[in-house]
Amino acid sequence: MGETVIEKIIRNNVGKAVKPGDIVTVNVDRVMIHDIFIPFVAEKFKEMGFTKLWDPDKVVLIYDHLVPASQLDDTRHFHVGDEFAKKFGMKNVHRSDGICHQLMTEAGYVKPGNVVFGTDSHTTTYGCVGAFSSGIGYTEMASILGTGTMWIRVPETIKIVIDGELPENVMSKDVILRIIGDLTAAGATYRSLEFTGSTVKNMSVASRMTMSNMAIEAGAKCALFTPDEKTAEYCGIELDDFQKSLAGDEDAVYMKILTYRAEDFVPVMACPSQVDKIRPVEELEGTEIDQVFIGSCTNGRLEDLQAAAEVLKGKKVADYVKLIVTPASRKIYRQAADMGILDILAEAGAMITHPGCGLCCGRAGGILTDGERVVATNNRNFLGRMGTSKVQIYLASPRTAASCAVAGKIVNPVMGE
Amino acid sequence: MGETVIEKIIRNNVGKAVKPGDIVTVNVDRVMIHDIFIPFVAEKFKEMGFTKLWDPDKVVLIYDHLVPASQLDDTRHFHVGDEFAKKFGMKNVHRSDGICHQLMTEAGYVKPGNVVFGTDSHTTTYGCVGAFSSGIGYTEMASILGTGTMWIRVPETIKIVIDGELPENVMSKDVILRIIGDLTAAGATYRSLEFTGSTVKNMSVASRMTMSNMAIEAGAKCALFTPDEKTAEYCGIELDDFQKSLAGDEDAVYMKILTYRAEDFVPVMACPSQVDKIRPVEELEGTEIDQVFIGSCTNGRLEDLQAAAEVLKGKKVADYVKLIVTPASRKIYRQAADMGILDILAEAGAMITHPGCGLCCGRAGGILTDGERVVATNNRNFLGRMGTSKVQIYLASPRTAASCAVAGKIVNPVMGE
Repeated sequence: MGETVIEKIIRNNVGKAVKPGDIVTVNVDRVMIHDIFIPFVAEKFKEMGFTKLWDPDKVVLIYDHLVPASQLDDTRHFHVGDEFAKKFGMKNVHRSDGICHQLMTEAGYVKPGNVVFGTDSHTTTYGCVGAFSSGIGYTEMASILGTGTMWIRVPETIKIVIDGELPENVMSKDVILRIIGDLTAAGATYRSLEFTGSTVKNMSVASRMTMSNMAIEAGAKCALFTPDEKTAEYCGIELDDFQKSLAGDEDAVYMKILTYRAEDFVPVMACPSQVDKIRPVEELEGTEIDQVFIGSCTNGRLEDLQAAAEVLKGKKVADYVKLIVTPASRKIYRQAADMGILDILAEAGAMITHPGCGLCCGRAGGILTDGERVVATNNRNFLGRMGTSKVQIYLASPRTAASCAVAGKIVNPVMGE
Repeated sequence: MGETVIEKIIRNNVGKAVKPGDIVTVNVDRVMIHDIFIPFVAEKFKEMGFTKLWDPDKVVLIYDHLVPASQLDDTRHFHVGDEFAKKFGMKNVHRSDGICHQLMTEAGYVKPGNVVFGTDSHTTTYGCVGAFSSGIGYTEMASILGTGTMWIRVPETIKIVIDGELPENVMSKDVILRIIGDLTAAGATYRSLEFTGSTVKNMSVASRMTMSNMAIEAGAKCALFTPDEKTAEYCGIELDDFQKSLAGDEDAVYMKILTYRAEDFVPVMACPSQVDKIRPVEELEGTEIDQVFIGSCTNGRLEDLQAAAEVLKGKKVADYVKLIVTPASRKIYRQAADMGILDILAEAGAMITHPGCGLCCGRAGGILTDGERVVATNNRNFLGRMGTSKVQIYLASPRTAASCAVAGKIVNPVMGE
């Protein structure tokens, strides 16, 4: 019988064929711990009686949510992390290089076909290169650190086929938002999403990353793209036979198949305060806004900043509107500086911050107040995420967000001149 | 009888000769209100029964301490400010362009010989272009907004003469720190400082700005430099006869004259937790540090970032040390981007933030925790200013700060290669 992508990855990992519902123990290829959770992971690790890491090279520690520190207790997390890394011989520590999910693929920690866990819900991101990756809690992480293994139930797969060419003002963010709206916030709980079709084949790895990143917003356990030449180039590798095989078989069994025509997608927004409350931007036009945020592990990559710069070049952010831009990594920041993108954005009136989670986790860098509305490119518009519980967050693509910043209100995205 | 610089400025303003101790009412040329105080100024202005500004063009509103917002109530300050500006026909509003003191001279609001007040203690800064400028409270500001006038007592003058050439690793920050140490923190209370001599004549306006900025740390009411060709170029004007006359007369009466030889200056630091606790950097060498901050209205200008970039080029910030860089204005940020300085700093490991007060006012962007030490280029090392009350702040020049960032401990400043 044929296999879905997730079934192939798990079979390769455990050495025997699996089917949805099977409980198996996987060998973990890499784990990611971020600054928020490291103190709790370290404590649990000690409680469990472990005295060494199963493999220090497979553990990556990334400071991103708390960088730069904005609360009195933040730097304690760095001290705990540094001490843990020293004590257990860890070398893969990033203290201010950007957002964990960006770095895990950008810095080469994750390869196609890998099994990866992280202490953040958006760990689904690495599906963009065909890795099975998922978020776990700190107790589970501590257990992996000691054993190198983790139990999972093999998930069912929902296949999503998208063929054709997207309209030019539609980005992959619009695509995944629409799909989350169709699936609903709990519609893919514990399922593996498998993206295929000519549209996703034509997407950059960065665009795919936006989609695998947000899959968790429909509850997905993971979200997989078939590795191809772009993946190989991005990862700096040649794909081996196993990696090349990571497409769903013709006769694989899917729980559900959703089929889309790319031409049918339009720019959309997730309206306050649910990620699956999707409406076409057109229907929201004219809504006044106070702020725009372009950044996060969802949409802080070079192509996102480029889209924003295209829209903002030679224009100004509207009076009374604040535009915050946060590149996803130091590498992207430097590329954007080098290409003149930072200057275009700064000239237009943007406030550009150091790469990190920034405003997405609502700790600093543009906190909002009762009654304010923000158009944001990140992945969650939950109540209170970017300020008080009376802030209204509209999630959108970088192109839409930049267009709204210029207009001072919600408008359908425009193309640059 | 001869006059000091402050006596000339006041005489020109009030139309009659003055002497120290005289109480006079000056006509105000320009005022600056920042985001922290605008709600209080607006309230007092209303309480006082005023219905219009004496001259909307002379009022400048600058959002800098709270930009980008890091606390739930911050953006309310912007709303109050925007409403006030709209209601009273103000056009000079800067919502995210940089630090108030940088913008007041950089954007041309202050000219040599002007009388200027601001709601921030470091308003003494504009003495760098030969303006009398001083910090006031929000009640006084509300009164000026309605009347255009302000009473002052004519201050006595302390003349500071510095001749010769500074050692190459000494910056104007080292000079003013040494002088504050000599004067002590209350040693110039309500006095006008008057800087002269070949050393200050050779300084850039930016370097002078560092010194006038910090004069308040010795209690000075103002801190004046004689306008010259550099001042004219910086301000984009030709100096008129009055402006050219702004040097102390040979027979002026000074309360005190301090004389320095430039060659005697060495790199110094203000040690925790008093600005006048000055020690040569050499004596502090080897002290381990956790963080370095380069920025603020004291030292966030292009020449400061250049000095840091010279030191950091091709090097890396030491492990476990965080380097935060905050340009003083959007213009400086763009110049630094254009000149490749941001890239050099980012490559070395710096976290570069949006221009503003940032970490100097201890609200976000690198908050520290008990027991941590920071070398910082700003103007105050008071207890609790950058985190908990158990953080130790060492004030230094940008060159010293950058050198410490590379070494991971306090070291005498090095020159670039």
